[in-house]
Parts: sequence; structure tokens; C-alpha cells
Amino acid sequence: MKELEKLMEHTIGRVNINLRHSGIDVGPYLRDMAPVDNLLKFYAFYGIWSNHPIHFHFSRSNLAGSYFLGRCKVDNSILYKCDIRGDELKEKGETFDVDGTTLTVEDDEVIWIKNSLLIKTLVHNFSHNPEKLELFLIKNSASAPYANIHGSPVEGCFLEPFSTVDLTSLHDCRIGTYTYVNVGYLSHKEVESGRVWIKHNDDFEFNYLFDNDVLRNRYIAFEPGKGAMGMFMDFAEDRKIDFQRLYDVVNLDSPVKEIPRGASINRYSVWKGKNNISENVLVSQRAYLESASLGPGANAQENCYISFSNLAGYNVTAHGATIIYANMGKKCFVGFNSFLQGKPECQLTTGDECIVMPHTIMDLSEPVNIPGRHLVWGYIRTQADLEENSISLERLSKIKDGIEMGNMRFTGNGEAFVNAFRHRIDHILEANGAFFDGESGRGHAQKGQNISFNIIQPYPRGPLKGLYPTIDIEP
Amino acid sequence: MKELEKLMEHTIGRVNINLRHSGIDVGPYLRDMAPVDNLLKFYAFYGIWSNHPIHFHFSRSNLAGSYFLGRCKVDNSILYKCDIRGDELKEKGETFDVDGTTLTVEDDEVIWIKNSLLIKTLVHNFSHNPEKLELFLIKNSASAPYANIHGSPVEGCFLEPFSTVDLTSLHDCRIGTYTYVNVGYLSHKEVESGRVWIKHNDDFEFNYLFDNDVLRNRYIAFEPGKGAMGMFMDFAEDRKIDFQRLYDVVNLDSPVKEIPRGASINRYSVWKGKNNISENVLVSQRAYLESASLGPGANAQENCYISFSNLAGYNVTAHGATIIYANMGKKCFVGFNSFLQGKPECQLTTGDECIVMPHTIMDLSEPVNIPGRHLVWGYIRTQADLEENSISLERLSKIKDGIEMGNMRFTGNGEAFVNAFRHRIDHILEANGAFFDGESGRGHAQKGQNISFNIIQPYPRGPLKGLYPTIDIEP
Repeated sequence: MKELEKLMEHTIGRVNINLRHSGIDVGPYLRDMAPVDNLLKFYAFYGIWSNHPIHFHFSRSNLAGSYFLGRCKVDNSILYKCDIRGDELKEKGETFDVDGTTLTVEDDEVIWIKNSLLIKTLVHNFSHNPEKLELFLIKNSASAPYANIHGSPVEGCFLEPFSTVDLTSLHDCRIGTYTYVNVGYLSHKEVESGRVWIKHNDDFEFNYLFDNDVLRNRYIAFEPGKGAMGMFMDFAEDRKIDFQRLYDVVNLDSPVKEIPRGASINRYSVWKGKNNISENVLVSQRAYLESASLGPGANAQENCYISFSNLAGYNVTAHGATIIYANMGKKCFVGFNSFLQGKPECQLTTGDECIVMPHTIMDLSEPVNIPGRHLVWGYIRTQADLEENSISLERLSKIKDGIEMGNMRFTGNGEAFVNAFRHRIDHILEANGAFFDGESGRGHAQKGQNISFNIIQPYPRGPLKGLYPTIDIEP
Repeated sequence: MKELEKLMEHTIGRVNINLRHSGIDVGPYLRDMAPVDNLLKFYAFYGIWSNHPIHFHFSRSNLAGSYFLGRCKVDNSILYKCDIRGDELKEKGETFDVDGTTLTVEDDEVIWIKNSLLIKTLVHNFSHNPEKLELFLIKNSASAPYANIHGSPVEGCFLEPFSTVDLTSLHDCRIGTYTYVNVGYLSHKEVESGRVWIKHNDDFEFNYLFDNDVLRNRYIAFEPGKGAMGMFMDFAEDRKIDFQRLYDVVNLDSPVKEIPRGASINRYSVWKGKNNISENVLVSQRAYLESASLGPGANAQENCYISFSNLAGYNVTAHGATIIYANMGKKCFVGFNSFLQGKPECQLTTGDECIVMPHTIMDLSEPVNIPGRHLVWGYIRTQADLEENSISLERLSKIKDGIEMGNMRFTGNGEAFVNAFRHRIDHILEANGAFFDGESGRGHAQKGQNISFNIIQPYPRGPLKGLYPTIDIEP
């Protein structure tokens, strides 16, 4: 056990040194979140497929319960039940446009995780740092459950529970609980809990701040020695058992006899009750469907929950988003870690092409209707809450300087903001294969149909107990 | 599929070239025995433990259904449902005594399998070739189901079904169906089917030849285009289903609530009906127990079947041996691929310390009793058959020049033969931990209690379909 404990302290020490300016000790926050027994108990696994050059390297690490796809190196780290998906990494020879300058990728990009302690964290996509095209680096960093590291290289950072760093390079930062950051670059900053912050150069800036008491008392709190608590954690905890059987067997039969053309259901997703999926639907690993209906081209991304809901088609349900008792129109987008909780008697209904901002909480105490083509954010419990928490895309597009609504402040050009979002949603649908016509438009839904999974486990005893052997895998 | 088929032809071509002096084409014998669908279907797995330095290297190979433990390299080969156990390989610095000369091992020994096609073959122990202490090489070779390669480096060889090469270096040889060879060194020879041949320098030689018609018509035949047929194959085939569920789940609970002290039951063994095991019992991977009772220190080695039988204690049931409806005394040895088939009304009973030679068939048509301290060989159906197929160890020890009994011819010194066998049985019991007293005498039974298994699978599609990625694993 000694080596594993040493490794835990090694990673904690590295994060603390990088964050010494803030005086924080991340140890008491994280030690109990990756119990040694669990680090021994859960196997890790990696995907073998032909759509991306395989290269895995694992050394002096514990990887319990983690999943790897794509090119990835892990050294001196503990990744506990993480999801590391590098199937969109840049490949050698690709070109990359940055503000008018065209850069060529010199080598296949690799995700490199070093001296880090990541817990139930999702790492995805490719590095959006144009200064290091070939390397998606996560170093001297720690993260708590249900954090998302999306296209964001992080060094010396502490990501609290349910936080998301999106398309942003971070250095020596602390990102608060349920905080969303998409600002391009951030160094030596502490971003408070419950902030939703998007900034694109001088074009626009979106800023929302949750009422901290509401967030802490009802949804998610994080304290040293106690870890993460609240409805978000309880919700995930209650559904753990449904995932267990996926991991107990080596191969699992598809829950559907005939998978619609172009659709795929990851074998590590939960399928409860009667679900309907259409053509080109993507159900990702650790997605959870219960009595859900997904129209053509809809995707259910990693760690999302969709229950008792109908999604009309071309819907994006991003990583960690939850949708319960909702009827959503076509091409609606629900961002990272959003928590949309209707009830049988308080359903959520939306028109087409709505954008639910990342980290939005809708915890309904009455039925709520959102008209089509609206942007929604923040904290919503009633229809009346929409007044301060939504705006039509049409109105937003006309804003030139800024607008304040409740806890939200928007500055800059509304049209640029709407266009950037639209562009991103189209890109996500395209990458996921939503528009596949049987020949062209192939994306994750189609590529994901044929993956094998290899299982790796740590030394069960002896001096290296809990560490995984050094493993190198190449094509 | 193309690459996998190329690999198959590559290995067949290499064996044929080495055996060109005999004019054989091994292709028609082997192609249908490793069907492409099966090569894609079954996962391979390797053990992670702390009792031996781990080093695995796999490249350009298919490993379907195979199991690896210990230091091993596989290149350009197809290993279909093989069992490669290198946990007894020599370690750097060990000394090794050869006819009075002491050799020191320079590097940790490695099993290296290259350009070979091995089917349901067991590779075990360490190379007994004193000229290459650090390398247990299997190259340009092919083997058919239930062959055993035990301590025998083989190059350019074709091993037919149920053959065993034991402590012998082989070069460009064909070893017949159900043939046992333990002669130290053999080059450019074809050993006919059904021969049991032991030779130790000029000390002694044991030679038995099965009636070829009996062997072919009833037990095991091998023909190009048709593969292996007969009772031996049917017996294994009928029990396949019992193994399947072992492979379907990632972790399997022990069939016994309290495992006796010092005993271990491999998680890939079959446990049917009510079995009893005592202290220090070893049940190896792919051993099959059904209503069996194993006294203290008994071992059930890889691929053995023990059904409706009592083994008093310190029994050795070697790789591939079958024991049905038998009551065997203490310290009885049943050699490789022996097939002892009693019936409820025709039981086999033996006294203590009997030696059943490797490749012995007892297919009883009446109850048979073998007194203690007897050597038994050949083909036995009735009590009367023992006259030409057994001898007391006492009588054998007194033989100075030789003896002929039925199809068996023994030449040389009987005492040396008996002592060599005794020494080997004691060594096997010791290595397997039969004499563990809670502190000293630790062997496989005790070391095997704590192993993790990692699972690997091939590319499911694309140009590399059916090949496993290149994998390197180090401590």
C-alpha cells in the first residue's frame, strides 16, 4: 500500500506547490474521495479501434475505473473513474487556423497527464492552446468529481466538483465548485464557486453568478475533510448501482435488437426502461437513458442522464448534463453539467433550437415552457424565473454593447455570441455524425459502432500493490 | 481480415520450410482449427502479481483466448487458447547445475514465441536447454490441440494433438499424435504417433508404443482437412460450455466460502457439483473439478479433469490428465495427458505412491485395483491388462540391464529411473507448495492466491482486424 499512498501524497504536494500563492492545501479535500480500497477494486479499460492511431503509455499510476480512448500518456498520477477521450486529437499534417494564421501540426497530438490526481473527471477533445498544438498537458493538477476538462490544458490547477474548464489554457488556478470557465487563457486566478464565465477576446463576455447559499445548501457543497455533498452528488450516487452490472461482464449484448442506421450505443452506457433511438443517435460511454426518446442525430454524451424525456432530434446533451421529465424541440443544446429536473406534474417543454447554457439549473416547482430559439441560463424554478434567465436569440443578436438581467451580465456583441454558439453546435452535431447519410458525414456515432475494450488492473499485493504495471501500447 | 490471414500463412510457411526434409504441409492440418471468427471472439489475458518480474511484449499477433503469466514475448504468431506460464523462469543470478558444471544465469529468462501457430497448447516451466539458459524459444513451430511444451525449446517443429515434449530441445522435428518425448535433445526426427519415449543419457530408456489402430479408431486421430477427432476431443468438447461462464465475467467469486489454509483455486477453473479440497491444494487455471475430493497438498494442474474421484493427498495430476471414478492413494502421480476413465461400476483404485506414466490410457471395462508403489503405463482396460502394463517400483529398482513387457521395452538402470521419477515428483509437490507449513515451503498454491487478470482484445475492424496492438508491459 505504501507506494500508492506515496503517489497520492506526491500528486497533492505538486498541486499545493503550484497553488502556494493561494495557501490552499488540496489534500483534505481529495484524500477521502479516492479510497484506497476502491483504487484496488475497479479495473481500468482502453478502447481498441481503427479510427485513430492507438498509443497508450501508463507508468507509476493508479487508473482505477478509468477509460481511455485515443493517444494518451499517464505518469505518476491517480485517475479514479475518469474518462479520457482523445479520439479528436489533432493529427500530424493537419492545419489549424488561429486568428488568420495557419499552423501545421508537426506530430500526432497526445494527452499527457503527469503528477495529477483526477477524480471522476472527464478529459476530452484536443488542446485549444495554439502555442502547444501537439500536446494536451494536464500536470500538477487535481480535480474533484464530475469536473470536465474540455480542450483545456491545465497546469498546477485545482478544479472543484462539477466545475468545467472549456477551451481555456489554465496555469496555477483554482476553479470553484460548479464554476464554468471558457475564457481562452487564465493564470494565477481563483474563480469563485457558481460562476458561469465566457469571454472571447474583446468580442463578448457572458457572466452569471449563482446565489452561493442556494448552491451550497441545496445542490453542491465542497468542504475539506467532508468532500462533495448535496443533491448533485446524491443523484449520481443513487444511480451507481445501474452502472455496476456494465462492469461485471466482459462483453455485453446490445439492449436493442436492431440498432437504427448510423446509430451507436456504447456498451458502457445504462439502458433502463423502454427507450427509443433513431438514426445517427450517439449514446456515449457512461450515458444513462431511462424511458427516453431520442430523435434522429441526437447525442447523449458521457456522464449525461436523460430520463422520462423526449428529444425531437439533432439535440446535443453535453457531458454531465441531466434532463428529467422534459420535452425538447429539435436542435436544442443543453450545456455541460446542466441539471434540468422536471417532475411528472412539472414538465419542462422547449421549442426548437433553444440553447441551455452550460451549468444551468432548472429545478421545477411548476410546468415551464420555453419558446423556440431562446437562450436560457442560471437558476430557474418557475415560469416567472425565465424573465431574468432567458432571452430570445433574435433579441440577443441585436445587442451591441451589453445587457444586465438578474445575476447575468452580458457585454459586447450579441450577434457574435449567437453565431459562435450556433457554429459550435453545428460542429458538435457534425463531429458526432448527426448528419450521416449512409455514405458521407461519418462521425462518432458511426465510428463508435465497433470498439473492443481491454481491461487492466493493478498489482493485487506486494510492494507495488495498487500501482499498475508500466504499459506501452502502439498500433 | 487480410492481415490475419497473411499471418496464418506466414506461420505455416515458416514451419513447412523448417520441415522441408519431411515434405509435409502443416497448413491443411491446422487452418480449420483456429477459425477466423474465433480468433476475433475470445479475449486474451495476462496475470499481474508480485511473485515474478512482469514483462510482456506482444506484436503483430493474434492471441485469442490465451493466458500469460510471467516473462513472455510474442511476435508474428497466432496463439489460440494457449496457456503460457512462465512463473518458473530462471532469474538473473541463479545458478544451474549441469552434469557437475555450475552455470550462472546472466539475465532473467524470457519465453519468446516467434513465427508460430500454437493451438490450445500449454507452454510451461523454463527452458531445460543448458546452452541457452536465458531464452525459452519457440520459433517457426506449429502445434495442435492439447499439445504440451514443457521446459522444451522448439524450433521448426510440428506437434500433433495431445503430444507432449518434456525437458527436450527440439529442432526440425515432427512429433506424432499422443506421443510423449522426454529425451533431452532431438533434431530432424519424426516420432511416430502413440510413442511414449523417455531417455536419460546412457542411464535408462523407456519405450512404449500404442497400437495405432486402437488409438486412431477410438481415442485420437489427426488428418489433414479434418483436424483432430475421437474420444479425447469429444470429451473436451462436451465440457467447453462449463468454461464459458468463467470468461463472461470480469471477476468471479470463489466457489468456496473458506479456502483451506495454503490452498488456492484459480478463478479460471471449473468447479462443478460438490468438491472438497484440503490445505495446500492447488487448483490451476483451466483445471476442471466435478464431485472430487483432493487431500492435503494435492494439485490439479492446467487442463486436467478430475471427476467423481478421491485423491488422498500429495497427488500430482499433471497438465492435461483426466481422472474419472477413481480412488487414488497418497502421493500418486498421474502424468501428462493420461486418460483414466473409470465408470460408476468400474472404478479405478490405487494404493499409495503409484506412478501413472505420462500418456497412459485406462479405459476400464471392469473395476481395476493397482497395489501401492507400482509404475503403470500403456493401454489398460481390465485387471488382467496390468500384467503387461505395470511393475512394482521395488522390482523395477532391481533391474540392471532391461526388461520387455508387452509393447514396453525398458533398458538401463531401473533404480536410476525410479529415483529420477521420485525426485521429480518431490520437486513438483514442493514447487506447488504441497508442504507449506504456514511459514516456509511456499509454492504455487500459496503464491497463486492473489493475481489480477488484465484482458486484451484485437482490432475489431479496419486493416488490422484480428491483430492485437503492439503491447509492452514492464513492472
